[in-house]
Amino acid sequence: MRSIETCFAPPLFPHILTKENFSVVIVDILRATTAMCTAFEMGATEIIPVAEIEETIKFRNKGYLIAGERDGIVIDGADFGNSPFNFTREKVNGKKIVITTTNGTQTIKAAHISNTVVLGAFSNISYLTDWLAKRDQNVVIFCSGWKNKFNLEDSLLAGSLAQRLLKMGFESDCDSTKGAIDLWDIAKVDVLAYIQKASHRKRLQRLGLDDVLEYCFTLDTTSVVPLLRNDAFIDAMK
Amino acid sequence: MRSIETCFAPPLFPHILTKENFSVVIVDILRATTAMCTAFEMGATEIIPVAEIEETIKFRNKGYLIAGERDGIVIDGADFGNSPFNFTREKVNGKKIVITTTNGTQTIKAAHISNTVVLGAFSNISYLTDWLAKRDQNVVIFCSGWKNKFNLEDSLLAGSLAQRLLKMGFESDCDSTKGAIDLWDIAKVDVLAYIQKASHRKRLQRLGLDDVLEYCFTLDTTSVVPLLRNDAFIDAMK
Repeated sequence: MRSIETCFAPPLFPHILTKENFSVVIVDILRATTAMCTAFEMGATEIIPVAEIEETIKFRNKGYLIAGERDGIVIDGADFGNSPFNFTREKVNGKKIVITTTNGTQTIKAAHISNTVVLGAFSNISYLTDWLAKRDQNVVIFCSGWKNKFNLEDSLLAGSLAQRLLKMGFESDCDSTKGAIDLWDIAKVDVLAYIQKASHRKRLQRLGLDDVLEYCFTLDTTSVVPLLRNDAFIDAMK
Repeated sequence: MRSIETCFAPPLFPHILTKENFSVVIVDILRATTAMCTAFEMGATEIIPVAEIEETIKFRNKGYLIAGERDGIVIDGADFGNSPFNFTREKVNGKKIVITTTNGTQTIKAAHISNTVVLGAFSNISYLTDWLAKRDQNVVIFCSGWKNKFNLEDSLLAGSLAQRLLKMGFESDCDSTKGAIDLWDIAKVDVLAYIQKASHRKRLQRLGLDDVLEYCFTLDTTSVVPLLRNDAFIDAMK
């Protein structure tokens, strides 16, 4: 029987009990994993996540677009920030992208202990569920959180994804997974109303970046499964 | 305005955002903090938590009772394990106790960054709430979890305590606190039914130690607030 384990924030990831043959699903709903799914949907061919701003420099003269921000502010020299709305077909179709974000890329680095690392968002949840269900691997859902803390939006995705996987024959004896499912059961009736209380939602509002909220919580706007190959994500559905 | 922050497991504690003037409420419902509240209720005068089994040895000839277990098994040379039912008035009235547990004592050590460290359980929740409400300090609720992971039972206490404190004028902009309150709102209707799904409840059952469940989730069986003074807990209500 394949298991599901949920990790609510990066400091908890070294303590996961799932030890072998697992896919890691990285979640950073506001906004890194949502944005990366959008970029693939709009035709990007490759996305390289990097942890440090300095690392983007070597890609500038190699034809890559640079997406980067810290605390919601676009970094100097980047082509755009991390709003999914930046990744239009006109800008990214056929292009390679380098991305650096506040939380997401650090999480991706840690997840590298598995050789199957994919990105999860509400925007690709159905395609992702089907893709995971077809593989003979356990699943670890790895929430990026905010500054090494638990956050609500990533935990809701964890609950929603876990609930779907349980219906497809997975099992879970993980309290985090059960808690996440219960939170999702409360939120799913009206997820935009629920997420009003999330602290990150308020941070985005202060920065004028909360125009993406509705999009980030809308199901199935993309048909992609970003999969890490070496140091770059490609779309496993292509 | 006094704030509430919740930490779901020890690896998250170094990342709390509350930086000054705060009480730490340590929670280990199954069973360390519940048992220690019981011990004080039954007349214990002092409880010294230690992280390592070896540390209990030096207290043996000083008139201390030794309470100790690892993974639910009573350690060699201890007077009893960590079941609250061990701490009867006949055994502990007027006595000093040294306790070592799987999760709780490690948490207490980490919490020492604050000079106000108290123990929280369902068994002392009303007295604890009143005590915290009378102090001019922020509150950090520190769940011990299980093997450095999130667990449901400690998170439920966090939600229950936070909900009471919010009604007494505290505020919280912490997603963990909000998530914990939502879980408590689901569970409180029938907490024993809810906790059936907790993984630690199953571990206790396998070890034959789940006779304490109902007691551990019963409100207000004690009128104590265990408070850390130097390296020993005393009852702040005495």
